[in-house]
Amino acid sequence: MTVTLNDIHQAAQRIKPYIHRTPVLTNESLNEQVGAQVFLKCENLQKIGAFKFRGACNAVYSLTDEEAARGVCTHSSGNHAQAVALAARMRGIPAYIVIPNNAPSVKKNAVAGYGGLITFCEPTLEARESTLDRIRLDTGANVVHPFNDERVIAGQGTAAVELLEDIPDLDVIITPIGGGGLISGTSIAAMEIKKGIRVIGGEPEMADDAFRSMKAGEIIPSTNPKSIADGLLSSLGSLTFPIIQKNVEQIVTVSETGMIASMKFVWERAKIIIEPSSAVAIGVLWEKKIDLSGLKIGVLLSGGNVDLEKLPWQNH
Amino acid sequence: MTVTLNDIHQAAQRIKPYIHRTPVLTNESLNEQVGAQVFLKCENLQKIGAFKFRGACNAVYSLTDEEAARGVCTHSSGNHAQAVALAARMRGIPAYIVIPNNAPSVKKNAVAGYGGLITFCEPTLEARESTLDRIRLDTGANVVHPFNDERVIAGQGTAAVELLEDIPDLDVIITPIGGGGLISGTSIAAMEIKKGIRVIGGEPEMADDAFRSMKAGEIIPSTNPKSIADGLLSSLGSLTFPIIQKNVEQIVTVSETGMIASMKFVWERAKIIIEPSSAVAIGVLWEKKIDLSGLKIGVLLSGGNVDLEKLPWQNH
Repeated sequence: MTVTLNDIHQAAQRIKPYIHRTPVLTNESLNEQVGAQVFLKCENLQKIGAFKFRGACNAVYSLTDEEAARGVCTHSSGNHAQAVALAARMRGIPAYIVIPNNAPSVKKNAVAGYGGLITFCEPTLEARESTLDRIRLDTGANVVHPFNDERVIAGQGTAAVELLEDIPDLDVIITPIGGGGLISGTSIAAMEIKKGIRVIGGEPEMADDAFRSMKAGEIIPSTNPKSIADGLLSSLGSLTFPIIQKNVEQIVTVSETGMIASMKFVWERAKIIIEPSSAVAIGVLWEKKIDLSGLKIGVLLSGGNVDLEKLPWQNH
Repeated sequence: MTVTLNDIHQAAQRIKPYIHRTPVLTNESLNEQVGAQVFLKCENLQKIGAFKFRGACNAVYSLTDEEAARGVCTHSSGNHAQAVALAARMRGIPAYIVIPNNAPSVKKNAVAGYGGLITFCEPTLEARESTLDRIRLDTGANVVHPFNDERVIAGQGTAAVELLEDIPDLDVIITPIGGGGLISGTSIAAMEIKKGIRVIGGEPEMADDAFRSMKAGEIIPSTNPKSIADGLLSSLGSLTFPIIQKNVEQIVTVSETGMIASMKFVWERAKIIIEPSSAVAIGVLWEKKIDLSGLKIGVLLSGGNVDLEKLPWQNH
């Protein structure tokens, strides 16, 4: 069983009342800079400031009323936690969120602000999983994984459907790659809607486990990566890896300085706030390791959640 | 002779191939914060990062070929200078821009980047006007004033036409007020398109010449105002003041701290970059000096040109 375009279309219908239809922006300076025609799908302007809301929303609204009444749960301290909390609040059900006790308070506050019921745990994967498991057993809540979940993958694919409705003749779509949920959903949707479209992943050089997994033909786990792209530190999942192997043309790694330069350029010229994990997709074009000149390129800007007090181009 | 809705519709047709149709964004957090339904018309996402491109573009493309061949000229160091330079480059004609020799180099570079032919002058109004006059006499270039020009006022009004196409049932439109070009064009368009709509101006407390002019019934010039809203320091013009007197319900002044708080909130929650001059329009809602609760409110976000190295909420 895998995710199909039909699943993605159903997800799009299901979540339509709850999400923003995000704009697709163009910018001449960016086009000149990278030598291509770039179409920015602005999921940074999505609710909770990231595409993650699409997948979480699809998962939450896929539940039967009986299932939903027991709530949903996940472990995350990032955008997915906020996404699950908000989707659950919209449906009027509890969201149990497991957060490591060393997570920045801004992240905890954001989840709490959307009504998420937080349980803190030690900052280890084991503690996160055992805490989540206890909550699931106690409450009967439905687990919504950040990426290794068909409902989530289908939800993430809905952004590409909208992008191709707006710009049907794209040659290439580039997305960031972390756990692989976004690029999985995107590639399934895009390759079915437009035959021959190329799907490329952007990944930080400093967290290049997906790049290495593709070379190795098996999942190489991410081991303590250090990148400013804090949304892209996860390893691939058992559901996402085979989709990526089948659909994704290649994964291109981007340096930290390339991400920072791309991020600042987009802020300055396109006047939108993107987070480093989004900048990695622009970074693929910026660093020109591969030749995409003259093509029509859709870029999934994944999110815009940034601490405005600590910008990566400023000294602190 | 004044500007009519027909002029604005003609301007909209004229500039359509050259401008961005900017999106209208909504944000639940902002709605909750201010207690109203807010629709953000994102002219910060316009070309050159500000609504000014609309008026400049309309002026440049209103010229006959013979007039255009002699070029256009203006004195400005702000968004209008960039707007005239870019519109002229698009039409393939020279743009002579007079800039005071103490203007920040980032502004000079931006104008030069759009191909503007810069003449520096002493930083006094007299020097700016005499330098511009000399250029006009030497070249025969057409003067495009930043706001006291019917073509510019008509161009600025096109943003309100688009906003009301997208959201026809607005109760109120709020715009920032500097020289008055934006609010003049906006009020003419909006009040003709939707009978009974209220048009309100936002102005910095520290640069409240329009507020005082409305009270006095005559133009009170702006005298050396100090506000972070560097786009709103001009005095009203002989064309804009009568339109504002006739159409604008009231001008609401906003504190510097209210502008900074509004600006940061929009960056954080809506993930778009707005300049302080835009934040003054949000500031009207933020500070709640007048009761607009529960209404559907269009806010013209005028621009997004900000020095990312010097953000007003950071200590330097």
